[in-house]
Amino acid sequence: MKNPLVSIVMGSDSDLPVMNAAAEILTLFKIPFELDIVSAHRTPEKMVDFARNAHTRGIKVIIAGAGGAAHLPGMIASLTPLPVIGVPVKSGSNTTEGWDSLLSILQMPGGVPVATVAINGAKNAGILAAQIIGTSDEKILKKVQKYKAELKEEVEKKSHKLKK
Amino acid sequence: MKNPLVSIVMGSDSDLPVMNAAAEILTLFKIPFELDIVSAHRTPEKMVDFARNAHTRGIKVIIAGAGGAAHLPGMIASLTPLPVIGVPVKSGSNTTEGWDSLLSILQMPGGVPVATVAINGAKNAGILAAQIIGTSDEKILKKVQKYKAELKEEVEKKSHKLKK
Amino acid sequence: MKNPLVSIVMGSDSDLPVMNAAAEILTLFKIPFELDIVSAHRTPEKMVDFARNAHTRGIKVIIAGAGGAAHLPGMIASLTPLPVIGVPVKSGSNTTEGWDSLLSILQMPGGVPVATVAINGAKNAGILAAQIIGTSDEKILKKVQKYKAELKEEVEKKSHKLKK
Amino acid sequence: MKNPLVSIVMGSDSDLPVMNAAAEILTLFKIPFELDIVSAHRTPEKMVDFARNAHTRGIKVIIAGAGGAAHLPGMIASLTPLPVIGVPVKSGSNTTEGWDSLLSILQMPGGVPVATVAINGAKNAGILAAQIIGTSDEKILKKVQKYKAELKEEVEKKSHKLKK
Amino acid sequence: MKNPLVSIVMGSDSDLPVMNAAAEILTLFKIPFELDIVSAHRTPEKMVDFARNAHTRGIKVIIAGAGGAAHLPGMIASLTPLPVIGVPVKSGSNTTEGWDSLLSILQMPGGVPVATVAINGAKNAGILAAQIIGTSDEKILKKVQKYKAELKEEVEKKSHKLKK
Amino acid sequence: MKNPLVSIVMGSDSDLPVMNAAAEILTLFKIPFELDIVSAHRTPEKMVDFARNAHTRGIKVIIAGAGGAAHLPGMIASLTPLPVIGVPVKSGSNTTEGWDSLLSILQMPGGVPVATVAINGAKNAGILAAQIIGTSDEKILKKVQKYKAELKEEVEKKSHKLKK
Amino acid sequence: MKNPLVSIVMGSDSDLPVMNAAAEILTLFKIPFELDIVSAHRTPEKMVDFARNAHTRGIKVIIAGAGGAAHLPGMIASLTPLPVIGVPVKSGSNTTEGWDSLLSILQMPGGVPVATVAINGAKNAGILAAQIIGTSDEKILKKVQKYKAELKEEVEKKSHKLKK
Amino acid sequence: MKNPLVSIVMGSDSDLPVMNAAAEILTLFKIPFELDIVSAHRTPEKMVDFARNAHTRGIKVIIAGAGGAAHLPGMIASLTPLPVIGVPVKSGSNTTEGWDSLLSILQMPGGVPVATVAINGAKNAGILAAQIIGTSDEKILKKVQKYKAELKEEVEKKSHKLKK
Repeated sequence: MKNPLVSIVMGSDSDLPVMNAAAEILTLFKIPFELDIVSAHRTPEKMVDFARNAHTRGIKVIIAGAGGAAHLPGMIASLTPLPVIGVPVKSGSNTTEGWDSLLSILQMPGGVPVATVAINGAKNAGILAAQIIGTSDEKILKKVQKYKAELKEEVEKKSHKLKK
Repeated sequence: MKNPLVSIVMGSDSDLPVMNAAAEILTLFKIPFELDIVSAHRTPEKMVDFARNAHTRGIKVIIAGAGGAAHLPGMIASLTPLPVIGVPVKSGSNTTEGWDSLLSILQMPGGVPVATVAINGAKNAGILAAQIIGTSDEKILKKVQKYKAELKEEVEKKSHKLKK
Repeated sequence: MKNPLVSIVMGSDSDLPVMNAAAEILTLFKIPFELDIVSAHRTPEKMVDFARNAHTRGIKVIIAGAGGAAHLPGMIASLTPLPVIGVPVKSGSNTTEGWDSLLSILQMPGGVPVATVAINGAKNAGILAAQIIGTSDEKILKKVQKYKAELKEEVEKKSHKLKK
Repeated sequence: MKNPLVSIVMGSDSDLPVMNAAAEILTLFKIPFELDIVSAHRTPEKMVDFARNAHTRGIKVIIAGAGGAAHLPGMIASLTPLPVIGVPVKSGSNTTEGWDSLLSILQMPGGVPVATVAINGAKNAGILAAQIIGTSDEKILKKVQKYKAELKEEVEKKSHKLKK
Repeated sequence: MKNPLVSIVMGSDSDLPVMNAAAEILTLFKIPFELDIVSAHRTPEKMVDFARNAHTRGIKVIIAGAGGAAHLPGMIASLTPLPVIGVPVKSGSNTTEGWDSLLSILQMPGGVPVATVAINGAKNAGILAAQIIGTSDEKILKKVQKYKAELKEEVEKKSHKLKK
Repeated sequence: MKNPLVSIVMGSDSDLPVMNAAAEILTLFKIPFELDIVSAHRTPEKMVDFARNAHTRGIKVIIAGAGGAAHLPGMIASLTPLPVIGVPVKSGSNTTEGWDSLLSILQMPGGVPVATVAINGAKNAGILAAQIIGTSDEKILKKVQKYKAELKEEVEKKSHKLKK
Repeated sequence: MKNPLVSIVMGSDSDLPVMNAAAEILTLFKIPFELDIVSAHRTPEKMVDFARNAHTRGIKVIIAGAGGAAHLPGMIASLTPLPVIGVPVKSGSNTTEGWDSLLSILQMPGGVPVATVAINGAKNAGILAAQIIGTSDEKILKKVQKYKAELKEEVEKKSHKLKK
Repeated sequence: MKNPLVSIVMGSDSDLPVMNAAAEILTLFKIPFELDIVSAHRTPEKMVDFARNAHTRGIKVIIAGAGGAAHLPGMIASLTPLPVIGVPVKSGSNTTEGWDSLLSILQMPGGVPVATVAINGAKNAGILAAQIIGTSDEKILKKVQKYKAELKEEVEKKSHKLKK
């Protein structure tokens, strides 16, 4: 397998059903990626190592998903020069409808951005990673354009079906 | 002036005091950019033209800021293959404390991501743009690292001052 | 079929179960209408064409329903001189309980109103469209009055039943 | 003065600074209107009389603004066959940032719509009233189109100024 | 049956499963009551008649429950000198988790109070009605004291059971 | 001075500017009252004594105002058979815009109601107390009716002034 | 059984499924505890006795869980010099998604802290109690360290499994 | 100066005006403490070192304050066996009224508690630290009791003053 360009990490294996959507998009776009569990709160040292070294291993973009007081995306962002995409995960019923993960990921202080996507928006995190890679890889840019054209066609098919 | 790599657009000139922070960061990082007002609701045709053609003009990243029912970032994202960074602007007192712009920008449907930063987080939008460009430009990556090192030093200076 | 006076559009076919209630009301009131899927984010060009031309085709009122970062009603409103009724659709569990679509549709900037109804309030969107048409069509005004009288009777029947 | 086509009512004279914006738009569009204070809670009988008879006096559209537990728009809507535009007014500091008036006006039950605009969005209420009248008055439709064209020009002027 | 002292009204028969709890408490306390559906939005005239005349029929307290943009309690309060107890009903999934009915009932303007209880708190509305009647009826006051003593005993039984 | 019928208590002297409005209404209605500071958290024993004995001293209604985690109204309600009116006080900037006091007072468990009024709604608390006393005192009932008639006249004066 | 060091109390037996997690952690850490139902609103006198005397019985930490207008943790805190850990319990559907218990427990006034944990976070309340006891008991401190190391190992196992 | 028992850290020097209240309480209670700036996002390595070693330096309790996406308290908690008290700081106008820091600190996952106090509740954080130390230091427990007695006296003085 090729060297991964994107690293998808999540705080818990319970986030996997949500985060898989990012992996599926990268597979579709043929962008090599890796997938791991890295918990800010349970494996903080592993998180620090991961975040400090990702760019030296050739990773270009990090996608990090977490729920509740979701510190993983922001803490990784504090330790890497790479763009970090944050996915607020809403799982289970104790998480204030996702507001906690949304605000914990989005409201980063000046100097340390996290590119936040919608609640459970792992699919969009994958597309955003592709778009970032597409800024320097014409082939991926083309694939993004093709993907968008397909979205349009799908809607048009449904429109035709509805009109009948 | 060099061809801009980043385009900063905003829905209204009242967003300028907030959005200027993105321009300042790009100036600091010596990344050429352009700055314009493009209103999704008042100049929709201009917005469509802008969004469709940005990548053909050499733009790599678009930063879009808007307040209230903030449609600009998402609509641009629907029309470009480039990564779009959205800045929820909270200005004036009728905007439900910024929740409207935050949710209008963040909660995009599958297929059309917007990389959202914190409310009024234009500075972080600038840094995120630099990080994205840094994925294929080693010099910019280095500058991001240097910037983060300086953030650290500043905090350390304040720490020393506090301890005295 | 007669030329439609009302156009009901929605961002996705998943909005159809909600939006059908508007069609049912218009059918009841015998107001000719059309129904289509027009996605602001997936078919932006179709949306622009639709919105620019609706009034030239004899459409009097547009009903637009969408969920999440719901840009369809506001973007149509920016491109048409017709009154636009927005229906915030709450579908699925990732949409912050409907707050995202509610605020994305309601909080439009000065100059570009959207007549917003309750979350999933497509039935009321249909009635509002009838009321708007009723401002220049005495027969429809009468039907609205009759409809309201029937609402009253229904409640009175339930009241009688409860008292027994 | 000509017979009013639009009736602007508000729950309290403290709503006047907000609601005046609707009057200004109707003046600009040369649509005759009336302006009054009608309190759902303090003058309920006057409200009932007003709402029952507005359409018999030639009124086509009612604009109703209120704050707090804002019952005026919905109660008028329950008593008239005319379209009612509701303006959630956020005034003073005890009104939960406008959420109370917003939800009290928007979340009407099936059968009794209120066309809600943004918090303090009286200007848009005026434009919406014009658009409704424009559905049967070509001259007003033209004025709406001209108004929108002017909005565009204003943005373009600001864009040119910013670029210099 | 004795002349009712308490009138329990609700906006829709769908509120009955919630509002029944008020009837049960009044039955337990042997306070005569009546139960009816009175919709602010569908039967506004009936509501006005009901509210204006309740005190002349010997009613001492009105309990009013409603959901969504819940105008019933506040409108009744505007038309009666009697104390009105409002029950925010959360029913169905389109009602923003009950915030709409809560705020529509609670946030009444100066001069027109509604004694609001918890969301779906019809049981407490019944107890509050009993307490109000108890201010001039020693027997009811005693029953309230007995009721509270029983609540205490129940908790103590559960405490003993838990400790074993 | 006559024996007080209403007891107004508040958690802190910082609540006094808000709570005074209740005293003013009772003064206007010539209902004898007392005013005191009773803190649930700082003087819990005094609170228990106060709540247990109020009804034995001839008090008919208790008005309790508090901010933040506002436990005073609910705790008094747990210890008295009298109706307790709760006033959520929003004072200072650390209290989550009044949501904390509102929910701490309103959301009481089954068996222990608090009659909650609007945020900072001490005036309405006074009127509600009068209405409760009015259920067994014809003179007070009449005063409530007169008060409401005056509210109406005031609005009508403002209406006339506006029309000129 | 040894003298309990931690007292776990809850407002209702319906909180038991949530609060049991605290008991399980203390059992795991071999810290003796007691478990009881103490309702602020139904057994206020028992609550006062409990809170006043806990420290004289050798209790070191109190864990209090409650839902809705959750007054138990704060009222106990007002009556004891011991640290009180509050668990906002979200049970049933009428409790505004847990915001009521969260804010009722957290937003205590100056002078009377409650150490609040996440919604339904009884497990963490148990761990926090252990950490507090660990400040003067080296063996418990060691157990906390061991517990954290096990958390890490668990995540690492899941990480290995995922990578395969 | 004596070895510090409590460590007060904050994410930024802009948090100092809020966090000073914790220092004042510890000074009052004569509990030795240290005060420093440790930013999770700007000095992550310093934070890791600080958190790992605090207990080896004799620290018993850590108080951590931060605003926005407040990761400092939770990250420290993940790296220390000591009890961590979190203070949600609401400073500036871009922080969603403090909801972001509140939820980022409170909603920690199972295994890693943070003892959260009210928004800007640094004073209570200091008292809670004293209570924790008081679990094994009879003198501090006594001081907590004395402090509470003084709170009571203060309220009683204000009560007397009000009654005059």
